[in-house]
Amino acid sequence: MYEEYLEFAKEIATYAGKIMMEFYNDTIDLNYKEDKTVVTMVDKKINSYLIEKVKEKYPEHSVNGEEESYNDSKEYVWVCDPLDGTGMYVNHIPVFVFSLALVYNGNPIVGLIYNANENKMYSAIKGQGAYCNDIKISVNKKNLSDLGYKTNVEIFHNDIIDEVSLIKELKNDSKISSIGSVARSCMAIATGDFSCDIFPGTSHGNCDIAASYLIVTEAGGRVTNLYGEDQRYDEDIQGAIISNGVSHNEILQKVKKYYLKNNINIVK
Amino acid sequence: MYEEYLEFAKEIATYAGKIMMEFYNDTIDLNYKEDKTVVTMVDKKINSYLIEKVKEKYPEHSVNGEEESYNDSKEYVWVCDPLDGTGMYVNHIPVFVFSLALVYNGNPIVGLIYNANENKMYSAIKGQGAYCNDIKISVNKKNLSDLGYKTNVEIFHNDIIDEVSLIKELKNDSKISSIGSVARSCMAIATGDFSCDIFPGTSHGNCDIAASYLIVTEAGGRVTNLYGEDQRYDEDIQGAIISNGVSHNEILQKVKKYYLKNNINIVK
Repeated sequence: MYEEYLEFAKEIATYAGKIMMEFYNDTIDLNYKEDKTVVTMVDKKINSYLIEKVKEKYPEHSVNGEEESYNDSKEYVWVCDPLDGTGMYVNHIPVFVFSLALVYNGNPIVGLIYNANENKMYSAIKGQGAYCNDIKISVNKKNLSDLGYKTNVEIFHNDIIDEVSLIKELKNDSKISSIGSVARSCMAIATGDFSCDIFPGTSHGNCDIAASYLIVTEAGGRVTNLYGEDQRYDEDIQGAIISNGVSHNEILQKVKKYYLKNNINIVK
Repeated sequence: MYEEYLEFAKEIATYAGKIMMEFYNDTIDLNYKEDKTVVTMVDKKINSYLIEKVKEKYPEHSVNGEEESYNDSKEYVWVCDPLDGTGMYVNHIPVFVFSLALVYNGNPIVGLIYNANENKMYSAIKGQGAYCNDIKISVNKKNLSDLGYKTNVEIFHNDIIDEVSLIKELKNDSKISSIGSVARSCMAIATGDFSCDIFPGTSHGNCDIAASYLIVTEAGGRVTNLYGEDQRYDEDIQGAIISNGVSHNEILQKVKKYYLKNNINIVK
């Protein structure tokens, strides 16, 4: 049954990839035209397509999309970010993906992320490992303090974490980047390239993380909220720390430090 | 004559692109293998090829490469960063380019940047405008305070600028990213996507910036050192601010503020 859900997710992803790349290339041909509302259109088109297909095939399931939702049953929920990395997408930097998860009673059971630009489909079924196309993938085993390219820490610029202090501390022993798509960054973790991502998003944040949660976990990594706790992925989340597992507690301690320092409290 | 130099640069770029993509794809097929020294090999291979070809065709010219140099005449100098964005390259994020400029008495007269992954060749000849493949490109006209996707500010994480304070101030009215390749970011400025880049690199920093200097300038933007002054591009530079022109002074003031605050002084 889970395999069938994954096949369904792949169909949606294929459509999403087509739409994304069509507009991505179009705007380039149009000599870098000013109008960037195209991104909203792409987002909405993919989101609507998903709802239409779920209605057709699994009418009792729900859809929780970044743009639009359907049903409110919390048993089977398709959680989707149609275009993660919009800021990069509109600026013609090829760092953007489609993200879709099937969440059962709050827990992701099928996860799919599609990097259409490089034709890489990342997927996982609960308990069955994580894959990129047909290759099994796994996280690296580096500690935060292991210097080198692999200890990349991805931090989203935001107002929730005192990111600047955090960057100051982390940059002493890690490479820090901000590539603009949390789901793409999570796939770099799942394949052993990056080591960690700190994601502060709360409202609709589950749409960005649900699929990555499963793929990273199945690749041997760890995903929690910003407090180090498990959480549901069919509703707003309390941010996320996504890691290779080995560096999770270390990162968690550093994040905690800057919460307490700034007296920040995230309430759903 | 300049056209001939540009043709020569394109030949080198084509070779560089081939090497880059070969190894980029190889390491992916090899199931994300651990060994990342491949990047040094790619860098060196391209750099050596350039020197070999310059010796053949323009033996009186010099080469100033990030990996290796040739001759020390400062009349005609080929300034090259064989692979800008190595940190992204080794992590399989497609944000990396080849950069080559011909610098005459310190001033870039031909600039070429090749984004092999997307097959985009950016080029400029002094006084003749800037191009991406065959399309003329130009910067946007946004002020720093114009909100929206186009006011992206790219900042390299570094120890020279008090970047964290700078980010704190800038993020109030700009989108900030750190995509990991300054030359790729500069091309986003030249095409009107990004608005500004703050580059702190000094040692060999000219290798990263020389080609971008000309392409951005010819696209209507502005490039100075971190103090707002002109500089030579055939030797180490005092960092760089690369902008759409409109926002240049505004950025310059902000950078200046954090220099003075931290009493940082860059001496060649």
